Amino acid sequence: MEDNFSDIALNAKIASKQIATISTKVKNQALLNIANNLDKNKDKIFEANKVDLDSAITLVEKGEITQSTFNRLKLDENKMRDMIQGIKDIAALDDPIGKVLLKRELDEGLVLTKISCPIGVLGVIFEARPDVISQISALAIKSSNAVILKGGKESVNTNIAIMSVIQNALDNTEDFPENVLNQVFTRDDVAKMLKQDEYIDLIIPRGGNKLVKFIKENTKIPVLGHADGICHIYVDEYADIEKAKSIIIDAKTQYPSACNSVETVLVHKNINDDELIKALENAGIEIVYAPDSWHKEYGEKKLSYKTVESIDEAIKHINKFSSGHTESIVTENHERAKLFMNAVDSAGVYHNVSTRFADGFRYGFGAEVGISTNKIHARGPVGLEGLTIYKYTIEGNGQIVKDYAEGVKSFHHKDI
Amino acid sequence: MEDNFSDIALNAKIASKQIATISTKVKNQALLNIANNLDKNKDKIFEANKVDLDSAITLVEKGEITQSTFNRLKLDENKMRDMIQGIKDIAALDDPIGKVLLKRELDEGLVLTKISCPIGVLGVIFEARPDVISQISALAIKSSNAVILKGGKESVNTNIAIMSVIQNALDNTEDFPENVLNQVFTRDDVAKMLKQDEYIDLIIPRGGNKLVKFIKENTKIPVLGHADGICHIYVDEYADIEKAKSIIIDAKTQYPSACNSVETVLVHKNINDDELIKALENAGIEIVYAPDSWHKEYGEKKLSYKTVESIDEAIKHINKFSSGHTESIVTENHERAKLFMNAVDSAGVYHNVSTRFADGFRYGFGAEVGISTNKIHARGPVGLEGLTIYKYTIEGNGQIVKDYAEGVKSFHHKDI
Repeated sequence: MEDNFSDIALNAKIASKQIATISTKVKNQALLNIANNLDKNKDKIFEANKVDLDSAITLVEKGEITQSTFNRLKLDENKMRDMIQGIKDIAALDDPIGKVLLKRELDEGLVLTKISCPIGVLGVIFEARPDVISQISALAIKSSNAVILKGGKESVNTNIAIMSVIQNALDNTEDFPENVLNQVFTRDDVAKMLKQDEYIDLIIPRGGNKLVKFIKENTKIPVLGHADGICHIYVDEYADIEKAKSIIIDAKTQYPSACNSVETVLVHKNINDDELIKALENAGIEIVYAPDSWHKEYGEKKLSYKTVESIDEAIKHINKFSSGHTESIVTENHERAKLFMNAVDSAGVYHNVSTRFADGFRYGFGAEVGISTNKIHARGPVGLEGLTIYKYTIEGNGQIVKDYAEGVKSFHHKDI
Repeated sequence: MEDNFSDIALNAKIASKQIATISTKVKNQALLNIANNLDKNKDKIFEANKVDLDSAITLVEKGEITQSTFNRLKLDENKMRDMIQGIKDIAALDDPIGKVLLKRELDEGLVLTKISCPIGVLGVIFEARPDVISQISALAIKSSNAVILKGGKESVNTNIAIMSVIQNALDNTEDFPENVLNQVFTRDDVAKMLKQDEYIDLIIPRGGNKLVKFIKENTKIPVLGHADGICHIYVDEYADIEKAKSIIIDAKTQYPSACNSVETVLVHKNINDDELIKALENAGIEIVYAPDSWHKEYGEKKLSYKTVESIDEAIKHINKFSSGHTESIVTENHERAKLFMNAVDSAGVYHNVSTRFADGFRYGFGAEVGISTNKIHARGPVGLEGLTIYKYTIEGNGQIVKDYAEGVKSFHHKDI
């Protein structure tokens, strides 16, 4: 392992050009080799994980890390099985690279093709979830990107063990280039990563709000992710109250700390909401009628609640306070639903369903890179496609622009 | 005109939500009204332009601006006709908003739709080309984005006159929201614009390298554009020398200051290049065999020239020194062409054609926002599509995630 970050980044850039050209077959073989090697070496990984867990337990006792961080850190047979299955699932997906997105004859014998290709080098910064390594590595390989991973310090032994098993599998995969996967370890490496816009094309943070906010504020490299998940449900005047109850309870209690959980409920003034409020309270939800801020993300069984005069007020409130993640309207009136879905500017805008559906697997993407609240490139749950861009090729036989500029030839632009 | 930039940005954000929901018909009516109003008021615009030209002429004499800047500043009947026709052309294009990009039944009665939508607020910074105002305004309107424009100080009177004619046309367009188009004037406004990532979603610089580099280095808002255009032509061992001559001459002399002009020619060592060199020199091209830097963008009839040992050396050279804009291989060997097009990581990779084809109009996009060398969102010549993103909607009838998590229901993911 080199310790000079610039060398690692440069080598990753070179590797990114090599993995861009390898076949689907080689990539899938690499993924299956990784899956098999993890299965074969899982005891070694559990041993390394035990070292991390032993250190972590004292940190939990001292209150320096939470019990839930400890739980995320812990690998067991179930998590390992999911990790291995996840890699096999990614191997089974269509190759996102080399897809023809447009083919157009510009003129006789002059053919333009728009073709999907990898982005280049991904920088991935994640917290105490060592299973991220295998998942991101598999996504990067399938999409022909190189990657530089920086994990949490609490899981350093586990991370090294997993990466060594993965790297060993790649070393034994014929025609697989070196330096595609790279791991760095220090805070200083993170600082360097965020500055390396010459070599790193996209940063993917996997962790809590604080991590994502810090990264977004400290880099000019594009960041794919979301800091906040302030999702809203608007209960319209024409709502079916039974649906409203069940949707809000699901969206708040099914997994309260998820980013797609509801944080604010807006209710039309013409709704008699006594019954609704009682149902939420019976489900263990604490209702906050006057929050300090309408930007509040609770992450627990608690939500902000507001009565609104009209659907317009609801839309304006959401467009002002939402983090742009996911919102839902409950109504039996289709015109109202259409208006809401048109006017609300979020990655997901739903009608009569729980906000918790915002998820790459539920959308049928087969794999999820993360959820993005960006306004460019990729928005909402991001599948493999979010790790691709495109290039244009033109095939010709000596054509020059002068002939077209002077009217000797002309374009006919036929899609083929 | 308000002079508080934050107010302008906030109002633009509000306007962006409004224009997101207006119909294609209203947008096209607005564009036709603008075109007509420009035609009706062109003398007023020429008068304002004359004021700018009178000031500029003394700046040319003092050497503070170049003759070519002066020429770009000057509006005449021809430029006005092109401006007006450009707006009509954009009106005639398909609406890029509201396109269904994916429709999938997740389960019975639970339908996911991926639908194109505007990005939000565009910040456009341009130099002494007042025709950019009408072009960008038309592109923004057609793609339902709000825009804040900052033009060069040399054309301030022209810019104000054009914007006032455009604004008047919009004021007279039924159902067209206010504050969609906004203009600011000072350096201080630019500094504020680059910091307003809360309100501005995308920056589009239209100008020289220095402007684009300055902007990229001073904002965290995504920037759509390119600073450099260091394009390469590789003359392969199996090249047809006549094609090589004509392609290089076209790519260097047809418009030497264009970003898609060739800057570096790489020639395989097995090519006897006496004749090629003579042809380039006869076309008035100065050949630099030992440039100070292989990153050099000449912008005049001058190019860097290098003999390479192999196609691999050519590919490595390009991937190292190119700005990622456009490159071309001249060869009669299709395997070599395929290898080159696969391995070279640029927005455009061509075979046996001039690099000058890299252009939205030549690609048949009908309008061009600019050329991007970004690795995410939009790459190469960018049409209206580059000013859009998408949202996901789900239509349901009360579905909750709990049922799927507990296996009561399951997804079937059928594209419809």
